[in-house]
Amino acid sequence: MQISLTLQEIAARLGGHLLGDGAVSISRITTLDKAQAGEISFLTNSKYRSQLASTNASALILGEGDAGASDLPRIISDNPYAYFAKVSALLNPLLPVVSGIHATAVIGEGARIASSASIAATAVIGRNAVIGEDAVIGAGCCIGDNVVIGCRARLYPRVVIYHDCVIGDDLIAHSGAVIGSDGFGIAMDAGHWIKIPQVGRVVIGNAVEIGANTTIDRGALDDTVIEDGVKLDNQIQVAHNVRIGAHTAVAGCAGIAGSAVIGRYCRIGGGARILGHLQLADHVEVAADTLVGKSIREAGSYAAIFPFSKQEDWRKNAVHLRHLDEMVKRIKVLEQELELLKKREEK
Amino acid sequence: MQISLTLQEIAARLGGHLLGDGAVSISRITTLDKAQAGEISFLTNSKYRSQLASTNASALILGEGDAGASDLPRIISDNPYAYFAKVSALLNPLLPVVSGIHATAVIGEGARIASSASIAATAVIGRNAVIGEDAVIGAGCCIGDNVVIGCRARLYPRVVIYHDCVIGDDLIAHSGAVIGSDGFGIAMDAGHWIKIPQVGRVVIGNAVEIGANTTIDRGALDDTVIEDGVKLDNQIQVAHNVRIGAHTAVAGCAGIAGSAVIGRYCRIGGGARILGHLQLADHVEVAADTLVGKSIREAGSYAAIFPFSKQEDWRKNAVHLRHLDEMVKRIKVLEQELELLKKREEK
Amino acid sequence: MQISLTLQEIAARLGGHLLGDGAVSISRITTLDKAQAGEISFLTNSKYRSQLASTNASALILGEGDAGASDLPRIISDNPYAYFAKVSALLNPLLPVVSGIHATAVIGEGARIASSASIAATAVIGRNAVIGEDAVIGAGCCIGDNVVIGCRARLYPRVVIYHDCVIGDDLIAHSGAVIGSDGFGIAMDAGHWIKIPQVGRVVIGNAVEIGANTTIDRGALDDTVIEDGVKLDNQIQVAHNVRIGAHTAVAGCAGIAGSAVIGRYCRIGGGARILGHLQLADHVEVAADTLVGKSIREAGSYAAIFPFSKQEDWRKNAVHLRHLDEMVKRIKVLEQELELLKKREEK
Repeated sequence: MQISLTLQEIAARLGGHLLGDGAVSISRITTLDKAQAGEISFLTNSKYRSQLASTNASALILGEGDAGASDLPRIISDNPYAYFAKVSALLNPLLPVVSGIHATAVIGEGARIASSASIAATAVIGRNAVIGEDAVIGAGCCIGDNVVIGCRARLYPRVVIYHDCVIGDDLIAHSGAVIGSDGFGIAMDAGHWIKIPQVGRVVIGNAVEIGANTTIDRGALDDTVIEDGVKLDNQIQVAHNVRIGAHTAVAGCAGIAGSAVIGRYCRIGGGARILGHLQLADHVEVAADTLVGKSIREAGSYAAIFPFSKQEDWRKNAVHLRHLDEMVKRIKVLEQELELLKKREEK
Repeated sequence: MQISLTLQEIAARLGGHLLGDGAVSISRITTLDKAQAGEISFLTNSKYRSQLASTNASALILGEGDAGASDLPRIISDNPYAYFAKVSALLNPLLPVVSGIHATAVIGEGARIASSASIAATAVIGRNAVIGEDAVIGAGCCIGDNVVIGCRARLYPRVVIYHDCVIGDDLIAHSGAVIGSDGFGIAMDAGHWIKIPQVGRVVIGNAVEIGANTTIDRGALDDTVIEDGVKLDNQIQVAHNVRIGAHTAVAGCAGIAGSAVIGRYCRIGGGARILGHLQLADHVEVAADTLVGKSIREAGSYAAIFPFSKQEDWRKNAVHLRHLDEMVKRIKVLEQELELLKKREEK
Repeated sequence: MQISLTLQEIAARLGGHLLGDGAVSISRITTLDKAQAGEISFLTNSKYRSQLASTNASALILGEGDAGASDLPRIISDNPYAYFAKVSALLNPLLPVVSGIHATAVIGEGARIASSASIAATAVIGRNAVIGEDAVIGAGCCIGDNVVIGCRARLYPRVVIYHDCVIGDDLIAHSGAVIGSDGFGIAMDAGHWIKIPQVGRVVIGNAVEIGANTTIDRGALDDTVIEDGVKLDNQIQVAHNVRIGAHTAVAGCAGIAGSAVIGRYCRIGGGARILGHLQLADHVEVAADTLVGKSIREAGSYAAIFPFSKQEDWRKNAVHLRHLDEMVKRIKVLEQELELLKKREEK
């Protein structure tokens, strides 16, 4: 299925200011250096500006400051990156959902599946689960008893949602994601760990995306909560009783420990770790691979990355990290002795 | 299903010292600040002591030192956290197992499945596998040929166990866990990697819990061994030929490299890394995100975390990490010159 | 099935220089300390040389420098580690593939499955997918529409490959691996994240191995590319539009961010992070847990690991990391003042 739109049609649907020939036909979106005739490209990062002169694209999406930087047919937007996303969505629509339940799917007693929903082969839906309109449950997904999934959910193959979890509309969940597994709750008793039952749920708002092999544990007593618009990349671990505020984005491999509360519009870098019971304010950015070991009360960017170097240089430098305190004491002694010398000299 | 017990019945089953009205009826356990009538709460962290005065709980679990800190009906325990876990287990029992093999499960030739076991929809059991009494194999699980799984195992949907692995009683394995995948064994030969066959197994003791999407590789020549009572959180990687000692707990996202031997009763923090071929003594605690790069022979707590700060402060400070050795040399020069100055001055 | 070969037969098949009794029969390969009669062992790490004297192995694989270090029947190789791998493969052949499609597998319209391929129980193959000769698709695997998989692929249970991905010959993919999930592409628009359609594919060369629960995202516009002979361990995250050069090996839990380009014959340590849009030259080695924050143009070994220590020592030392810049300034002041003192004294 190949969609073609004129530049004018695109601008009519998505807004923006059209400059040049609106009749040019567009069927693909791509980068400046790879674009060919019939394709639209975009400039969202000034370091690629020089490619404007040589691109073979038939049209461009440009920011307001770049309106005059090319003579090609172009749409000017105050947010060219979002505009690019919208054009790409126009040109690459989701495949239409084929409603119905595959013959090999297994549907639990009392489950209510919207007639417009699609349940793929070998999916297993628990008792009394509710699947909303136009939802797509991919092959091999396992949806637990009493789970509620909203409209237009799109679960790729092999997503697991444990019993009792509640999910809003427009969920996207990628393969291998696990929602509602037990939190890591154990108590030591006479030399043995006892399991603490995890009786909370995972409650997920609207328009959340969950990446491949990401795990979100159910709460121990209360719920784990993922608010509206949260975007989670792949391989993220969200522990029990975490709350992630609306529109926060978390990059791959990050880990958020139990009962941490993350604000709204935060951006957590790849591989970052947020320790348990901490609170992060709204609009906090955490750099990749940074461990956050205490609460952050103030919006802003935070980091803790050890700069890499050649192995031999690293070795030479890193060895001193075990002696920093001693170094500081040596500096202090130097300062005191120098002060003494200066005083004596002044006499 | 809602269970109710009087405080007296709880104390009769679990021990502890009952103070106050034992006839009060309890049906839920929750935190001090959220508790309502009919609910029991607990104090296990002194920072919440002030909530004792205002809680609406009908009863409490308290440590011996806090016996007089409330007038509510209460049970005094020398380990209130474990007591809380036990009360929660009483009030939140596992759903009863419905024995039998679902019609869509696929059972390999020669498999021996206990009559009390439950094999859920679309599960696939390999040839000659053995599944113990009261075991629950969740939807979509794949159990390899010759695998032995003990009694009362509870496998959530989509657990995979590769051929020949041997597992004790009371295993809990969460969705996406993979047990027995090949270790990362490769040898470079004339510009190409050759695969080293991974012919060991994974051998798991009793009462082990394995978190969602955690992976445990089979051994290269010998077995990978997880001893009794080990608790593994989500997204952990256990490489080939690792041995994890009994009752050790490992938090999410940790990685344990090949042939590492971890002692008993260790606690490994989230995201920590244990390099290959190392040995950790019993009772070693490793902080979150800490890389252990050499063996630890002595019980105790170990850490290596770079403290985070505001991005601009981090940048200003971190740049010097590549020059620590130079800094130390500058300090040494200062010390020597100061010494010279002092000596000359004394003359 | 137990295979036995004489030492002479092994040398005839694999080369190497045979010393001693070639008629000795070998049926297993194991380590020096565990070897018994009928077993062959090997020395690839000089720290085990002392075990040569006491081993019960019936034969040995030794490097050229160790040819005289034992009197046991032995094969001398210029690469004893690769030789060990080859002997192990001889003694532990893969189980033969039983061709055919299991009755519970679900095959999409237009799929072309080689007659020698094996499709296991509950596997789901998409429309127009192509599965090559002698490929093994394990239980519960989900292969998307239009996917092409080459010959001799071996997919363990529950691998997911999204639509349109293209994979060469001899793929090994372990359970839980996800290939072709959406990259993490989002654009902020008036307070909401918009999804950027991920319309590229994942293109994988020949002889690639992908570990358990590893994820490889499809490209946003162009493809994500994994070249020939790349070996990925477990729980690795490969983001959209990454390119990994031929014969590069990546250890468990590593994360490679979007559009990073890794050279050929690189070795990336466990838990390492490569930030987005960076380039790594060929033959770059990155130590475990090291974050690479800028491009590496030169072959060599690179590291950034914070050395661990006892918790109290770590605490004492780490606190100064937030004051390194101040320390450097104090050293500078000391140097200047000392210089002044020296000058004044010289007068």
